[in-house]
Amino acid sequence: MNLSPRLLGTLLAACTWTSAVSADEGMWLYTNPPRQQLKERHNFEITDAWLDHLMRSSVRFNSGGSGSFVSEDGLVLSNHHVGADAIQKLSSTSRNLLRDGFQAKRLEEELKCVDLELNVLQSIEDVTARVNAAVPAGASADDAVLARRKVIAEIEKESQDKTSLRSNVITLYQGGAYHLYRFKRYTDVRLVFAPEQQVAFFGGDPDNFEFPRYNLDFALFRVYENGQPAKVSNFLKWSKNGAEEGDLTFVSGHPGRTSRLLTQAELEYLRDVQFPYTLDRLKRLEVLLQSWGARSAENNRRAKDELFGYQNSRKARDGGMAGLLDPVLMGRKAEAEKQFRLRLAASGEYPDALAAYDKIAAAQAEIAKLALRFRLLESEHAFNSDSFGIARTLLRAGDERPKPNGERLPEFSDSQLEPLELDLFSDKPIHEDLEILKLTESLTFLANELGAENATVKAILAGKSPRVRAAELVSQTQVRDVAVRKKLYAGGAEAVRQANDPMIELARMIDAEARELRKLLEAQGELKQQAQAAIAKARFALEGASSYPDATFTLRLAFGTIQGYTEDGRKVPAFTTMGGLFERNAAMNNQPPFDLPPRWLKKKSAINLKTPFNFVNTADIIGGNSGSPVVNKAGELVGLIFDGNLQSLVLDFAYEDVVARALSVDSRAILEALDSVYDARDLVRELKTGKRKS
Amino acid sequence: MNLSPRLLGTLLAACTWTSAVSADEGMWLYTNPPRQQLKERHNFEITDAWLDHLMRSSVRFNSGGSGSFVSEDGLVLSNHHVGADAIQKLSSTSRNLLRDGFQAKRLEEELKCVDLELNVLQSIEDVTARVNAAVPAGASADDAVLARRKVIAEIEKESQDKTSLRSNVITLYQGGAYHLYRFKRYTDVRLVFAPEQQVAFFGGDPDNFEFPRYNLDFALFRVYENGQPAKVSNFLKWSKNGAEEGDLTFVSGHPGRTSRLLTQAELEYLRDVQFPYTLDRLKRLEVLLQSWGARSAENNRRAKDELFGYQNSRKARDGGMAGLLDPVLMGRKAEAEKQFRLRLAASGEYPDALAAYDKIAAAQAEIAKLALRFRLLESEHAFNSDSFGIARTLLRAGDERPKPNGERLPEFSDSQLEPLELDLFSDKPIHEDLEILKLTESLTFLANELGAENATVKAILAGKSPRVRAAELVSQTQVRDVAVRKKLYAGGAEAVRQANDPMIELARMIDAEARELRKLLEAQGELKQQAQAAIAKARFALEGASSYPDATFTLRLAFGTIQGYTEDGRKVPAFTTMGGLFERNAAMNNQPPFDLPPRWLKKKSAINLKTPFNFVNTADIIGGNSGSPVVNKAGELVGLIFDGNLQSLVLDFAYEDVVARALSVDSRAILEALDSVYDARDLVRELKTGKRKS
Repeated sequence: MNLSPRLLGTLLAACTWTSAVSADEGMWLYTNPPRQQLKERHNFEITDAWLDHLMRSSVRFNSGGSGSFVSEDGLVLSNHHVGADAIQKLSSTSRNLLRDGFQAKRLEEELKCVDLELNVLQSIEDVTARVNAAVPAGASADDAVLARRKVIAEIEKESQDKTSLRSNVITLYQGGAYHLYRFKRYTDVRLVFAPEQQVAFFGGDPDNFEFPRYNLDFALFRVYENGQPAKVSNFLKWSKNGAEEGDLTFVSGHPGRTSRLLTQAELEYLRDVQFPYTLDRLKRLEVLLQSWGARSAENNRRAKDELFGYQNSRKARDGGMAGLLDPVLMGRKAEAEKQFRLRLAASGEYPDALAAYDKIAAAQAEIAKLALRFRLLESEHAFNSDSFGIARTLLRAGDERPKPNGERLPEFSDSQLEPLELDLFSDKPIHEDLEILKLTESLTFLANELGAENATVKAILAGKSPRVRAAELVSQTQVRDVAVRKKLYAGGAEAVRQANDPMIELARMIDAEARELRKLLEAQGELKQQAQAAIAKARFALEGASSYPDATFTLRLAFGTIQGYTEDGRKVPAFTTMGGLFERNAAMNNQPPFDLPPRWLKKKSAINLKTPFNFVNTADIIGGNSGSPVVNKAGELVGLIFDGNLQSLVLDFAYEDVVARALSVDSRAILEALDSVYDARDLVRELKTGKRKS
Repeated sequence: MNLSPRLLGTLLAACTWTSAVSADEGMWLYTNPPRQQLKERHNFEITDAWLDHLMRSSVRFNSGGSGSFVSEDGLVLSNHHVGADAIQKLSSTSRNLLRDGFQAKRLEEELKCVDLELNVLQSIEDVTARVNAAVPAGASADDAVLARRKVIAEIEKESQDKTSLRSNVITLYQGGAYHLYRFKRYTDVRLVFAPEQQVAFFGGDPDNFEFPRYNLDFALFRVYENGQPAKVSNFLKWSKNGAEEGDLTFVSGHPGRTSRLLTQAELEYLRDVQFPYTLDRLKRLEVLLQSWGARSAENNRRAKDELFGYQNSRKARDGGMAGLLDPVLMGRKAEAEKQFRLRLAASGEYPDALAAYDKIAAAQAEIAKLALRFRLLESEHAFNSDSFGIARTLLRAGDERPKPNGERLPEFSDSQLEPLELDLFSDKPIHEDLEILKLTESLTFLANELGAENATVKAILAGKSPRVRAAELVSQTQVRDVAVRKKLYAGGAEAVRQANDPMIELARMIDAEARELRKLLEAQGELKQQAQAAIAKARFALEGASSYPDATFTLRLAFGTIQGYTEDGRKVPAFTTMGGLFERNAAMNNQPPFDLPPRWLKKKSAINLKTPFNFVNTADIIGGNSGSPVVNKAGELVGLIFDGNLQSLVLDFAYEDVVARALSVDSRAILEALDSVYDARDLVRELKTGKRKS
């Protein structure tokens, strides 16, 4: 499952844009579409009208993900898993919308989402010249950063005042270009339809990132203005006949983040240090929660979501690791870097860019020295528990909030306080037994990583075993009481100190080192970014904007062919059918996670089992593309991106099209399910006609 | 589950005996029982007759595990899991005895086991003086080893010729003593009764090593002589009333291996290096097989047994890790070492023993340098697949078999060739997909551990990704064809070379280094053993045989009180009931691994649900004790050891009795199940009367 881009970040890795574009590669800017590639490879010419229509029909979910308008009455199509958080928030103990699904029969039944915001891109303006002009030529790195920050804030404010549109300056090509994106915001978003999670995410973790696949991963929302369904002039028509193998298709969505021009030094660090560390940690956590969850139904309920998160990340990283260890893929990247450095050297005009590679390698070596302790102490890998997270937030809130806004840690800046407080005062249940389990494991992890005789480890364990120490901390802390949190937050540093809470005091004990590690790492990150900018500048001068920048969770156009592939000598067809869903369900004896909702088992005979269900194409996507519409040459909707296959997980580093595939729900399966399983005639008509029944 | 001692070994750890005996501690020699402790703590006096009877009633399963005679007609009680391998070998595609259980209604229906051998200890003789006298005073280490080997072989042969009993000289206290053990062998062993594995191992991995517990983990065998049930004059009477909380009980069985007097240097190595490495590896493998197994019923069937093995080891090591990180437990051991070294120093008489600690630390440091490559290349952690194992065996058989017997690698010595050939020519199914999966993972593990740029890694991967290389090796090798194996084995080194099999050639490529690593490690192990012997000698002189040696898979007497404990502030009662089995089954919705055989669900109303099912006591046990009888002061059978709780996993390093417990099946549950569920009236009578119905 392509999770939101927020969950995909690789803190220590910088990124830059790619150069050697081939095949159906690319996450293209709408201002620089792949006209030439489409013409040459597919004999297809994009018109400006086609592009503009697709852009305005595309929707960004600010919770992480993509979507599209599919009727003039503001109906929005996205994935169930993109909307799951919003659906969850509309559920209660008596109404489990995730499990049971939801269908509004009438407008009045559409459910207003708690905090969902959708954005629709309206225009893009190149402001590179103005941004660069604001930065004095000989400025120090620190001054340059400040001057750039200032001019960007000015541009955004001016645009916002003038247009009332949300306005963001996006840094592209690592500082090679700055574009002003203006978005129309929709904050009244209502749930219209969601299938049962069990059919949306049929096969759960075992089938996650796999193909063939049978997921009805869609949900429908509607945007409202002034209490009425919003009228939108751009929306995607539903294709009458759908797509077939060999068809050229387009994907318009918001890929979150790619890392395609890491230098060799950075890639080697990922391959030899960071990925092995992360994978070991994820697998420990997975085994911990799987094993504990299997001991009772209640344990399973408590551990399930977190366990899935670890499994999802683990599969994604295993896929990334496979790419990093693939000499063909990585050899191409190494060769490209070598050739570009030779070109830089030959030209003699880019000494900064040429020197940048060694600077990045040096910074990476410094990062390697700091990273383990940083992850353990600052990223809380040694204290994996909600209780510790809350304790640290209380501690730091006391220290940070009295400071001037600009001097605080970013998560305590004025603009961040509202979500921080929402989170801090949430009364979501925290289970003491699970807290002890996880803290025991992470204190053990700490001792394993640094060695039990390490002074920090000894201070943290306070002469006790991980188990005893974890039980003591978790049972004695008061921070799981929301009233206590509110009191300490309001009381500030002195109240926090006087509380003498053991978990807060643990956070305090390591706070100086944790903050210092963060500062040191951020400094190395800044050095890497400056070096990357120098490379970017040279590349821009030598190659122009003939390519696409790394993903930035802004709207991009990708394209690809619907095409099966070969895996272990076995042909994997491009399409599955709804009949295949029932076959897999039967083969797995209707056991979780391959069980089907009762409604589906009952309605089987009503369904046309030959209906195409999921399909694959070669489009260049990544996390954040979930919910992206897949359209044909006529710009009609034929599918809905919901995942990539295991082999596509290397797309973080490089495009490939032999076996990497984007996975979509077929538009015909959505109609067939709405019609034959859910009897949602009005919705079917709205999708087919593009307007709501009046 | 206490697996067989063969599976529990820690190759790189030496062991020695413990000194500070307290509480219900100890795995006592029958020649040196804990008379004083029993008198002082429990006001109980052991008689020689009591001891001799218990000794002759105790049975060793040479496949790994313990048992006891329970009727004069040679009926033997042990665990289902101790007998599972034998039961499996009696099964066929049409008769699944593990799943469905087995019951012989008549003598003629008792099934002769394929290769099960039971041993019963008849006598113990101290031969220390003769062994030591045979070793010249000033001999070098190498010469000493040879002289000792020679005299031991002489003693064993003399005894065997004289008594016709299996005769083994056992090295105790790391060379502090040598005892001659004589066993009566039974090689005609027949299966009499086995319950369904699902009730024997109810709860599977989630409940493994846990308590409360509900496992009917027993099976009944019968030894035969001359085609008739053997008459035995010593067997355990079945207690009429069973035991209750607070009772003193005894365990007579064969603990496989403990490591209670590792030096601090050795313990730190285990804690900081070996256990973290092993746990990371096990968790990777567990995630791999769990994830792959969940994708289809067939995958699950193929992966299940191997997955359980990893889970079982992982739980055991997690428990050991918790002990190694427990400052209370480890602090006591550190203090004991410190005090003993002070005592050695003060006496001035044991310079060798005093110097031994540094020698062990130095050897351990050398081992630390070699261990990773050793495990990857020689222990095959980099090539985790049946195909590689077979390929290496063929390669080395070709090289080793032409050598004189004494110069071969031990696994190719004459005495080992029969089991080796049995294994090598076995036609057990090897699944290509699972082989590729596992080899891909282990090649990835290799690259993660040594780094992808490492020369060995590059040579092994041959310029390919782990996945591509694994698929190529597994699909191209011929070694999964038994006929090919036979041909190459018969043809010897030249035939093996000419086969030019890619998997064999991979084994050849790393063979020189793998052999060298093994040799270097064995040399360091020898140095550690010599140092340990010096310490043992000094301890023997200073403290006498007032304690018990580390476990050696020979008969020991342990004792303990039936007693509940407290876990996370919650009281865990000493007994569970048969009603609890049904409650847990219902709470888990009869879902695997908490499902019950249909017979049990049908017979529920016939069962007295208040019957005690499993219980815990404080006896000092370890792997190998599985199947040991638990007897009361009268020497009557009240239970059957089948496991330890999670907290008992530290017993490898040190005894504790606050929360560590041995787990037993209650003798009353066995009778109740035989009577009310299986209608096995004749067996019930035989157990109650101690003789078969004539």
